[in-house]
Amino acid sequence: MRPLPEPPRESLTLAPVLHALSDPVRLELVRRAWASPESTCSALADGLGVPLSTLSNHFRIMREAGLISMTVDGRNRRVRPRARDLSERFPGLLDPIFRLAAAENA
Amino acid sequence: MRPLPEPPRESLTLAPVLHALSDPVRLELVRRAWASPESTCSALADGLGVPLSTLSNHFRIMREAGLISMTVDGRNRRVRPRARDLSERFPGLLDPIFRLAAAENA
Repeated sequence: MRPLPEPPRESLTLAPVLHALSDPVRLELVRRAWASPESTCSALADGLGVPLSTLSNHFRIMREAGLISMTVDGRNRRVRPRARDLSERFPGLLDPIFRLAAAENA
Repeated sequence: MRPLPEPPRESLTLAPVLHALSDPVRLELVRRAWASPESTCSALADGLGVPLSTLSNHFRIMREAGLISMTVDGRNRRVRPRARDLSERFPGLLDPIFRLAAAENA
């Protein structure tokens, strides 16, 4: 399992995190990653109908913002939410966003 | 005073609001607009060192996302935060973001 590069917790900043959450597909992917840690990229994207190249770009933006860790596991890419890093660095940020996103999709 | 077009409250969605907040300059402009309602665009941008054309674009993104109302007042453009619309449509969203942005800038 080869980890892909990611920013350390202490260098995470608010703007890229909000940018990563500011697209409906990425916001749904982040919500799914939080709900199902250690999923593969393709499992998280199931049913969203997004082309693979677009998906790779979305996951890169999420990884570079510090929301997720990714590892290459054979032919799969596994996604782990950086839940602890996010809650320590940006306490109280994600819960209201997830709640509002869920209400919007309901 | 001529109002510029803006989306009605019931059509506001989360993704454009997060996008409007996902740039450090826009986030600072939104914080200032909340702190000083009825300011002019140029007063809000004071000291940020951002070119006018970039500023116009930032204010347009904030207005189209529903964060602010703008009126043309002679040669000035006045900015009013849509604080009530935001808190009714997205309760609990802005406070943690403002708090984290303030901590990051401290």
